[in-house]
Amino acid sequence: MIRANPNYSKIQANYLFAEIAARVKACQAEKPSARLIRLGIGDVTQPLPAACVEALERASAEMGAAETFRGYGPDYGYAFLREAIAKNDFETRGCDISPDEIFVSDGAKCDTGNFQEMFDSSARIAVPDPVYPVYVDSNVMAGRTGAAAKSGRYEGIVYLECNEENGFVPAPPKTPADVAYLCFPNNPTGAVASREQLAAWVEWARTNDALILFDAAYEAFIREEGVPHSIYEIPGAKEVAVEFRSFSKTAGFTGTRCGYCVVPAQCRAFDSAGARIPLQTLWKRRQSTKFNGVAYPVQRAAEAALSAEGRAQCKALVDGYLANAAIVASRLERHGLKCTGAKNSPYVWFDCGMDSWEFFDKVLRNAEVVVTPGVGFGSNGAGFIRISAFNSRENVEEAMDRIEKILG
Amino acid sequence: MIRANPNYSKIQANYLFAEIAARVKACQAEKPSARLIRLGIGDVTQPLPAACVEALERASAEMGAAETFRGYGPDYGYAFLREAIAKNDFETRGCDISPDEIFVSDGAKCDTGNFQEMFDSSARIAVPDPVYPVYVDSNVMAGRTGAAAKSGRYEGIVYLECNEENGFVPAPPKTPADVAYLCFPNNPTGAVASREQLAAWVEWARTNDALILFDAAYEAFIREEGVPHSIYEIPGAKEVAVEFRSFSKTAGFTGTRCGYCVVPAQCRAFDSAGARIPLQTLWKRRQSTKFNGVAYPVQRAAEAALSAEGRAQCKALVDGYLANAAIVASRLERHGLKCTGAKNSPYVWFDCGMDSWEFFDKVLRNAEVVVTPGVGFGSNGAGFIRISAFNSRENVEEAMDRIEKILG
Repeated sequence: MIRANPNYSKIQANYLFAEIAARVKACQAEKPSARLIRLGIGDVTQPLPAACVEALERASAEMGAAETFRGYGPDYGYAFLREAIAKNDFETRGCDISPDEIFVSDGAKCDTGNFQEMFDSSARIAVPDPVYPVYVDSNVMAGRTGAAAKSGRYEGIVYLECNEENGFVPAPPKTPADVAYLCFPNNPTGAVASREQLAAWVEWARTNDALILFDAAYEAFIREEGVPHSIYEIPGAKEVAVEFRSFSKTAGFTGTRCGYCVVPAQCRAFDSAGARIPLQTLWKRRQSTKFNGVAYPVQRAAEAALSAEGRAQCKALVDGYLANAAIVASRLERHGLKCTGAKNSPYVWFDCGMDSWEFFDKVLRNAEVVVTPGVGFGSNGAGFIRISAFNSRENVEEAMDRIEKILG
Repeated sequence: MIRANPNYSKIQANYLFAEIAARVKACQAEKPSARLIRLGIGDVTQPLPAACVEALERASAEMGAAETFRGYGPDYGYAFLREAIAKNDFETRGCDISPDEIFVSDGAKCDTGNFQEMFDSSARIAVPDPVYPVYVDSNVMAGRTGAAAKSGRYEGIVYLECNEENGFVPAPPKTPADVAYLCFPNNPTGAVASREQLAAWVEWARTNDALILFDAAYEAFIREEGVPHSIYEIPGAKEVAVEFRSFSKTAGFTGTRCGYCVVPAQCRAFDSAGARIPLQTLWKRRQSTKFNGVAYPVQRAAEAALSAEGRAQCKALVDGYLANAAIVASRLERHGLKCTGAKNSPYVWFDCGMDSWEFFDKVLRNAEVVVTPGVGFGSNGAGFIRISAFNSRENVEEAMDRIEKILG
């Protein structure tokens, strides 16, 4: 008899964005004339940079000619892209990451969801609360947790409290843990970690033979001097940290699909006897067995995003979203709402003074604006709201006009 | 301490194609002037159909304009593609598969590798021998097997013997098993299953509360009347079978990346109490948690492959490879070598009369042609060779001229 994976039944209710979609659909059915503005899901709205479009078109044409057609690409990504990434994303920040430590994928969601396959089923996972749900759900599905309590927290996970007191940047846990998921600039709070804070995490991982999974998908939004862009800016990180990056928010690739992860040669796990095992060997095996690379035209588009022209276009794109975020934050602050994020992040996170879903429904029904209830990211998000700056300037301004009317 | 997944260390030596690549590289280093012809890996060589290139280019341009830009697509694929698939790949064959039973992905390798996540860790897996290595390796990595014996066979797997006696089409096992991986037209043998043979499998799955994972990636190569193209041509299959398809071999998408799987609404697994659980619900949860859809331009290109124009172009492409396969088989048969495949498959499979790797090395060194050693697909492949028809006519003819010289 074919038994289903029993861990799937532990997963809490609906995935956050599915629940939002259902409520939005119900509202639209009731008010078909409403012109909804979406500042909920973190999806970009501006077109791809011209350099990327040109590269996509050129590579598409190449696929139609016998001399330039490409079949299976290298499992870990084309050298042209891995080299461009090493040079632009790491060498410029003084990080010693070589192209063969970079693994191209179809996005950071897949990579952060898949990476837990490298770990023993007994690995103790530490996650921030609030958190991007994929880190938790992928481990629940793999059987690394018990059941969920009423709070939504799973037995067996070490939760890292993020709150206004610590500026939503958790310190390493006192409870034992083997792997910590960190994300800076953070989704959902928009908080960034300082060099000292990240150094404390690297020290924790080195001391405890633990591993850091560092999600830097929003790195392109960092504008303040002194904020680390990569975990590898911290000495000693290469042994204890894997980093995830994405072209989704940097270059508008949410519908084009490209990301990568960095697994340094010296990054290690341990076998049952306590001997070191290079994680890179395991990840190579995983990717060559279960993945077949990213479309050639998409890899060419990602390469173009890293050209001089592409970098300038991406910066303009990100600048536009950052300016939107600043507008959102300044409008909310007028009403005494203290905001996190916005400065180095497309997200604005604030305490809405009531239940998250109550505020969500109020804004949906009365302002016809979609935001994200903070409680969907964890119990510490209760009473918080995340507003995304991914929209046109005009829509952001109109949405904030409407929201301000409600705030009174 | 972060422990590695201990199951990775059970995996046998090198992945077949990595070992071939290493031997080819060594040969090239010794004989730099050799003009190698590759009939090894199953990678297409002809350019994408014109309809697909046009669709890729058009969609790329759409991504560059604000009015037509697309961000995150639906997790399970755009409706335009799911509808085109339901109509062209199933309705035409009399199969009742609706668009919402179709899940678009970046390829059948990923889907066949990922689908085992739906099963309990105790599920007993049945695989043919010889077999496409991904089915086995993904289950080894998930801990569903013991160690490998000297033969390369893993403890805990039910092996389905495929040999000349049964025409490389195995009957359902007498040993208990919960899931069977089947692939027709087969990779590596090129064998196809008759309606009666598939009906026996569906009957087995229904009787034993088991599941069939049916890989139909080579469906487009079927030319003989009466050979089923889909497992859903067999009555009762929707409850007990998941089907995997790909645009890789049909439309030359190995470097463009698109496939899909079919998980019918009534397809079931069972919980620990023996109650039915719809596999579709689990797969939706898996995909929405760990996958973010396929690039929009790629989905448009796949849709174009299913248009009237695209279908004609794909057929011409596949016809060309089939004609190559017929040449390979007829040339080998001149030397008394009995071939399987070629008729409804791009692969030709034959007993080479010596050790597989010995023949591989002989052909590589003396004919400068790359083939695939059958033993790489399992112990029943020992002494066999797979030749792939994926190359230009000219190269296939020259390769066979060279091989015939060796055969004498």
